[in-house]
Amino acid sequence: MRPAAGRPATAAVVTVGTELVSGIAIDTNTAEIALALAGAVVEVREAVSIGDDIDLLADTLRRLVASHDVVIVTGGLGPTHDDITREAACEALGLACSRDASIVERLRASVLRHTDSRASELLLAQADILNGARVIPAVKGSAPGQVVPTPRGMLVLLPGPPREMRPMLASLVADLAGEAPQPYVVRTSGMSESDVQLVASDLLGDREDIRLTVLAKLGDVRVILFGRGATSDQLRVAGEAIASRLGDAVYSTDGSTLPETVLALARARGATLALAESCTGGLVAASLTDIPGASDVFLGGVVSYADRVKCGVLDVPEGMLAHFGAVSEEVARAMAEGVRHITGATHACAITGVAGPGGGTPGKPVGTVWFSLAAPEGTTAFMRSLPGDRDAVRERSTVTALDSLRRALNA
Amino acid sequence: MRPAAGRPATAAVVTVGTELVSGIAIDTNTAEIALALAGAVVEVREAVSIGDDIDLLADTLRRLVASHDVVIVTGGLGPTHDDITREAACEALGLACSRDASIVERLRASVLRHTDSRASELLLAQADILNGARVIPAVKGSAPGQVVPTPRGMLVLLPGPPREMRPMLASLVADLAGEAPQPYVVRTSGMSESDVQLVASDLLGDREDIRLTVLAKLGDVRVILFGRGATSDQLRVAGEAIASRLGDAVYSTDGSTLPETVLALARARGATLALAESCTGGLVAASLTDIPGASDVFLGGVVSYADRVKCGVLDVPEGMLAHFGAVSEEVARAMAEGVRHITGATHACAITGVAGPGGGTPGKPVGTVWFSLAAPEGTTAFMRSLPGDRDAVRERSTVTALDSLRRALNA
Repeated sequence: MRPAAGRPATAAVVTVGTELVSGIAIDTNTAEIALALAGAVVEVREAVSIGDDIDLLADTLRRLVASHDVVIVTGGLGPTHDDITREAACEALGLACSRDASIVERLRASVLRHTDSRASELLLAQADILNGARVIPAVKGSAPGQVVPTPRGMLVLLPGPPREMRPMLASLVADLAGEAPQPYVVRTSGMSESDVQLVASDLLGDREDIRLTVLAKLGDVRVILFGRGATSDQLRVAGEAIASRLGDAVYSTDGSTLPETVLALARARGATLALAESCTGGLVAASLTDIPGASDVFLGGVVSYADRVKCGVLDVPEGMLAHFGAVSEEVARAMAEGVRHITGATHACAITGVAGPGGGTPGKPVGTVWFSLAAPEGTTAFMRSLPGDRDAVRERSTVTALDSLRRALNA
Repeated sequence: MRPAAGRPATAAVVTVGTELVSGIAIDTNTAEIALALAGAVVEVREAVSIGDDIDLLADTLRRLVASHDVVIVTGGLGPTHDDITREAACEALGLACSRDASIVERLRASVLRHTDSRASELLLAQADILNGARVIPAVKGSAPGQVVPTPRGMLVLLPGPPREMRPMLASLVADLAGEAPQPYVVRTSGMSESDVQLVASDLLGDREDIRLTVLAKLGDVRVILFGRGATSDQLRVAGEAIASRLGDAVYSTDGSTLPETVLALARARGATLALAESCTGGLVAASLTDIPGASDVFLGGVVSYADRVKCGVLDVPEGMLAHFGAVSEEVARAMAEGVRHITGATHACAITGVAGPGGGTPGKPVGTVWFSLAAPEGTTAFMRSLPGDRDAVRERSTVTALDSLRRALNA
């Protein structure tokens, strides 16, 4: 997308569905589309959600195609009477639809084989393509996408379900981007958002050919460099310079997530992993087992919420619990060594802390969390005072535990 | 809110912030506001997100106040130059702002004590109130909300951070609702969305004084009844009739979540809980430990991802694993009994299944999950074939495990 006047291209995103304006569902398509379009140097300026109201949708599309180069609509492309997007787009652009014979063919061969004839007739509406539009074939699901030329650029119709929308968005953005370089992403853990931001801005200075975005989520901080004139090579050089200055806070520059990185490091070293979780209560294990194939290095763990599980299953001495308390360096170490012993893992991490809202004391306020790592080289432990409410403390503890495993496996 | 002509009041929600249209953050305020307004018989028709663009925001507000009874804006009320909402609202309504002396007083007493004078001047912008507006005091944070009368109803300005917005929204909705009854919510687990929908619609018939919404999330299905003329009592009677027809699928009518219900039932019975998780990998434990105070009944669990943890920690016989496979009734039963034994819990639940994408076989395809419950009355087991991808299978398994604990504790 290269708007004539040399200004950056602008976009609007419209999400269609009563569930989005009635509080039943949360729209995640807008954020995904905005991030993808940024890679193609297209800037989303406004996003609109509307219910199944054909007149309002047609008015909205008419207004948006007049002021933006790219307008992307998701949802309302299915076969039911709620699916109003095709009709509203026709009305807004003054176009008619024609039924595409090859899409009808494909629908008949797949979904229609098992459907009765009345339902079939409805399903065929998905083959109605606006005159002059280019079809984006469906990768998942059955509704194809459509790219309709407009005086300023294009109106794009995509299905609403994210898993159907996503592959079409990728192909659209690849087209839009042309030679625009892929964004370069540096992911870090164990460093604060403001420190990462400072390092990245300092290194970039006032370069206008690169746009910097810092995305932070409770301890996991990402630097995204978008090309605004810079070539792929220039973007990579700038990204590598930032990564090198951020040092061992960087866990990936290839898109891998933190749990993926931990599993890959363990795999590469022939290490196996185990966990003993108290205040995180299973969140660290859940984040590792979220990754397909985790089972080859992640053996498992113990959620030792009650003291009697710490003693009975992990062999933490009762006297130690009584003397130092469950949230202490001693107990964290005993938990890590205990779970390493019973699972036979090479590397074990233990987490014990006060997530709140109750349970805090003057000496160990809410947010006090002890971490320990038991590895072939020995056992280490450290404490963090983590800010935020119960959810935030549990999330930050999860990232910190993964970060400590990563650093141990990297050492 | 009672629009003159007897039609339902309509609303629009505007969320302000560059992070929302650049893909950095996902807007959750709109869904929260829409659900809250539905309780006050106000229907959200469109939702708009815009960046920090004062002209676009002013235009948008002008358009929306002309077509809706209630327009709610969140975000852009802070003290920095990005915080454009007050100025845009003034421009859209042709109003001026005045600095409110009592808010200035409050700001000086709290946040300003530790701030240098230049920053103080900026912070005081939060005390600028549109002429004629009613102030909604800040409960959390420092920016107050504002309710500005418009020819059709009102324009409401609220802060963007959900924890600051939420208490103001509650007080606003209480005002708007007047005598409108609180929605009645019936929560169920273990029954399909379409079955729940069918039962509820059948019982309600074509009543026009109650609006029915069914909210479903991977096995957890909620029936929400909104008053559209019905009194509180009529709403309750209808809700109780639906709950009674849904029978033991109902887990709460008082707003409790499924993990909260399981913990409360265990507490009431003097039971204690433990888990042995394979394919859910810690998700069930994480959902229980998400609830403050879980530690009095939830003892803990074992994430037995690798077979050697199933054998070594849970005492599942190696021969059993070799003969029946990890995803089998026999192993599920052995896991449940094993974790009950080592933790000393009264009730233990085990989950072992094929979450995918790999690992499926013709006899045990992806989505095959065995559940077992070991209780004082004995051990039971059952199998489910759960649809969807890895995430969906893991989520549905989590709800199914909690549901089986609930039913066992209810028996």
